Amino acid sequence: MVTKHKKISIKPTHKPTLKTMDKEFVRFVALGGLEEIGRNMMFFEYKNEILIIDVGLQFPEEEQPGIDYIIPNVSYLESKKDNIKGIIITHGHYDHIGALPYLLDKLGNPPIYATRLTEEIIKKRQEDFPNSPKPIFQIVKGGETHEISDYFSATFFDVIHNIPEGIGIIIHTPIGNIVHPGEFKFDYDINGKPKGLETWKWVGAQGVHTLMLDSTGAEVPGFALSERIVEAELEKLFRAATGRILVGTFASLLDRIGEIIKIAEKLGRKVTISGFSMQSNIQITQNLGYLKFQRGTIIPLDAINKYRDDKLLILCTGAQGEPNASLMKIANGEHKNIKVKKSDTIILSSSIVPGNERSVQNLKDNLSRQGANIFHYKMLDIHSSGHAPQEELKTVMRLIKPKFFIPIHGYYFMRSQNAKLAEQELKLKPEEIALTDNGLVVELHRGGVRVTDEQLPAHYVMVDGLGIGDVGEVVLRDRLALAQEGMVVIITTLGKQNGRILKNPDIISRGFIYLKENQELLDEIRRKIRGILSRIPQYQPLDADYVKTLIRDQIGQFLYNKTKRRPMILPVIIEI
Amino acid sequence: MVTKHKKISIKPTHKPTLKTMDKEFVRFVALGGLEEIGRNMMFFEYKNEILIIDVGLQFPEEEQPGIDYIIPNVSYLESKKDNIKGIIITHGHYDHIGALPYLLDKLGNPPIYATRLTEEIIKKRQEDFPNSPKPIFQIVKGGETHEISDYFSATFFDVIHNIPEGIGIIIHTPIGNIVHPGEFKFDYDINGKPKGLETWKWVGAQGVHTLMLDSTGAEVPGFALSERIVEAELEKLFRAATGRILVGTFASLLDRIGEIIKIAEKLGRKVTISGFSMQSNIQITQNLGYLKFQRGTIIPLDAINKYRDDKLLILCTGAQGEPNASLMKIANGEHKNIKVKKSDTIILSSSIVPGNERSVQNLKDNLSRQGANIFHYKMLDIHSSGHAPQEELKTVMRLIKPKFFIPIHGYYFMRSQNAKLAEQELKLKPEEIALTDNGLVVELHRGGVRVTDEQLPAHYVMVDGLGIGDVGEVVLRDRLALAQEGMVVIITTLGKQNGRILKNPDIISRGFIYLKENQELLDEIRRKIRGILSRIPQYQPLDADYVKTLIRDQIGQFLYNKTKRRPMILPVIIEI
Repeated sequence: MVTKHKKISIKPTHKPTLKTMDKEFVRFVALGGLEEIGRNMMFFEYKNEILIIDVGLQFPEEEQPGIDYIIPNVSYLESKKDNIKGIIITHGHYDHIGALPYLLDKLGNPPIYATRLTEEIIKKRQEDFPNSPKPIFQIVKGGETHEISDYFSATFFDVIHNIPEGIGIIIHTPIGNIVHPGEFKFDYDINGKPKGLETWKWVGAQGVHTLMLDSTGAEVPGFALSERIVEAELEKLFRAATGRILVGTFASLLDRIGEIIKIAEKLGRKVTISGFSMQSNIQITQNLGYLKFQRGTIIPLDAINKYRDDKLLILCTGAQGEPNASLMKIANGEHKNIKVKKSDTIILSSSIVPGNERSVQNLKDNLSRQGANIFHYKMLDIHSSGHAPQEELKTVMRLIKPKFFIPIHGYYFMRSQNAKLAEQELKLKPEEIALTDNGLVVELHRGGVRVTDEQLPAHYVMVDGLGIGDVGEVVLRDRLALAQEGMVVIITTLGKQNGRILKNPDIISRGFIYLKENQELLDEIRRKIRGILSRIPQYQPLDADYVKTLIRDQIGQFLYNKTKRRPMILPVIIEI
Repeated sequence: MVTKHKKISIKPTHKPTLKTMDKEFVRFVALGGLEEIGRNMMFFEYKNEILIIDVGLQFPEEEQPGIDYIIPNVSYLESKKDNIKGIIITHGHYDHIGALPYLLDKLGNPPIYATRLTEEIIKKRQEDFPNSPKPIFQIVKGGETHEISDYFSATFFDVIHNIPEGIGIIIHTPIGNIVHPGEFKFDYDINGKPKGLETWKWVGAQGVHTLMLDSTGAEVPGFALSERIVEAELEKLFRAATGRILVGTFASLLDRIGEIIKIAEKLGRKVTISGFSMQSNIQITQNLGYLKFQRGTIIPLDAINKYRDDKLLILCTGAQGEPNASLMKIANGEHKNIKVKKSDTIILSSSIVPGNERSVQNLKDNLSRQGANIFHYKMLDIHSSGHAPQEELKTVMRLIKPKFFIPIHGYYFMRSQNAKLAEQELKLKPEEIALTDNGLVVELHRGGVRVTDEQLPAHYVMVDGLGIGDVGEVVLRDRLALAQEGMVVIITTLGKQNGRILKNPDIISRGFIYLKENQELLDEIRRKIRGILSRIPQYQPLDADYVKTLIRDQIGQFLYNKTKRRPMILPVIIEI
């Protein structure tokens, strides 16, 4: 059963009286990303200046049927759009850039600070939204400092994520330096030693007031699986394959994709790419010089028949069982160029996003029914998450040594785990850690951090087709109710003068029971309605709302007694 | 998006010509359990005798909104109910017993062969179904052989699952012995050595024609986590707790529950049980002498205030975030006797059933918002699955040494992995392994196994409220469509004589957009309808179906252009 998840209302636990309650402080608010995975957006405000970090979207869950995306609520920012001095984008994933086309106009189209690759990904997406304003970019690089406004400037540093050109930020503010490393994980050299620790040390050496850290991996013990190990496992599988190799992965896992193509080259296989989003991502990355292949390594899809099976590798989208993606089409025998062969080795190199288990199962079933050899990350170490787990988070804490800590990105439990890590590792007191929520205003004082009671609007804004925000709680509740038990529309035609029934009531129903096969029940409903109407006094003018309530209640109860189901009853009174 | 998962149609791959095509063979059919997890039911047929194993249900998935359960299709068996000689139940989980109350009558109420505990669990459940016939039991024990009919007899042997009294079966048939161990895993002694291997050896020594093995764990490498390790981890957590301990787990994990209570006794904590299903399961098990506690260990829920927090352990249902279960009520502050305290240690000792990720996340968030200490199996080894993983499956194969192999229970991919294990471990050829599907008839000959083309009805039978099977594909498809985009009912009242519109069209809509806030769109729809009607020639009798089609198509297209959504359009014509 789909249930509306309610959030229990508990007052913020840590509300210290600051030792130095400065008159001046920086306000920090996350508009999304704190009570979900995705929809990442936050801002800093000081006097009449606002600086935004990320403008992401969230993919809908079972509770939001029919919804395309969920985007942050920017009503507070909209009212102050002249104050917005810039948007910093940490990397090119949709949960960090995806709401830009919907919100850029409302935010007054301020300059976007992003790396070259991130810029290109945003531009590419913007092509699908001709009505959204043309973004203005300020290209940034690790090591650079950009003056953003009178009070805010930012120094950028490179981080490793699973998309190239992820960037971390030291935000220089009037109360001190705030560090937001975006999303990251460590990469390891062949000896298993983490690379790039000196960058983190350097960041820490700048003097850090507050560190904000992604909590997505805070429940996961240990270190990330090294991409080097993932690559070695993939190479082993590739070497064992005697026919074609098909690899399904996320179109955004560009680092992985690059490595797969390199291994293919090493083994003398041509690579073809099936899936629009992956093709365009690879194109962008290649144009910027990130992916460097030999000429002729990548061949067009329709050329695959010119090569022997053991000289081919096919990269495809759809490892999550998405219905229209490439791998699903292949599995269902609907792909134009690719049919499954028994000699195929098919590798799913991505974890399963919760909610997709059944689709991925179906994908694996259909592929293996056709005799292919399937490998999934569960069976071998062929996936590594993009989010730093506990030991990496702790290492960053130790190297940055902030005075205060704000766990960001992820559900409350994940953030509370991250807060615990900070208590242990940084010896911070609970009042030196701000466990905030979406929309809550946090005051960053020189001498402390304080979660206030001030709540800005941060509820879901849903995108459905062309509508932004027009699908609200009522519509969603109706969708869920309709899905559970269906509905019955009962149309009663009455004489305006005498309230007499003019016509056998019309009944239509969907999602309840198949009425064509339940003529008897239909007849009973009609009899009931006649009964209800016959008991209404005729000497007074017809009260249509009253009649509707009677029908709704009595027919609802009758159907419940008969079936133990509660379809939505929609009575209509036609007065002639 | 919810998608209907389609199964690709591939002819069974292994259709060997048997060396000895005997005239006489045993027919084997699984009616469920092969293309899903759950709904386990299979039968053997020889001449005019049928023997059934398990009659389980399946819990609905996202594709089946509003459905309570899915049960096996028994139309083939119903037509031959006089031939049914018995039902063997392997253990007391709902995916093995749950469809009995719905189907016992249709199967002619044959004797049920089950262990004592399984009998009690079935009886208890039967109380909720006063119209289902009183079951007739034949109590069985490991080591016993029961004559079931002229051609079938069964020898039972004990297996370890995560509910006590799981039982395996050697089915003696005219073509040889068929072994079906039910669901099992190994248990290990304190030195990590598997216990009970001599039983498996003994089974193998009987001479085995076909082995059928649960495939649920066939993708999982290695051995099961020993319950001893789980218990040691739990004890460590219990010892570290300074306040109350709350443990959420499945009500059916009776072995685990028993151990938890024993550890509590050891640490001097009283135990109370919150959750009806867990209470009654513990009661049954205790009555049968499985769980032996000191008097006074278990205290009533309303007595908890008489004990110090560090002298209490609360066992509760709802570790999956089920909306009405105990732990969810506690998390939401709605439990009568238990409110969360900051000093509580709350342990979720069960894996997450796919589909419940979001609910469990919400549960953990709400509990940790209230300051409790939460531990989940991901963070510590506090869960162990009930299904043998690869190395245990291989050990059983080696000890049983069957001539033929049929992987059962689980999706196709899992079963194909199990088949691969059998090829490797037993050196079986593909044609000695029957990879069948629900409803397909498998012939078990003396000299081989053969998956035929004969398909018995095996499609889903859905239980929704009092209805069994009355919710079919059409109703479900409508429910899913309603959930995606909602619906619009358009009621047009026309003069029967002249086809003239008598009244402004009534429009009701649910789950589409909030019409009250979209008056303009409503007006446009009404104008469109008048336009459609005005273009219908008035000189011929009104064709209501034609008018409905026009409205459905044109209003549907209009709304799609306006909103890029496709609500279900339901036109109604009232002729007066």
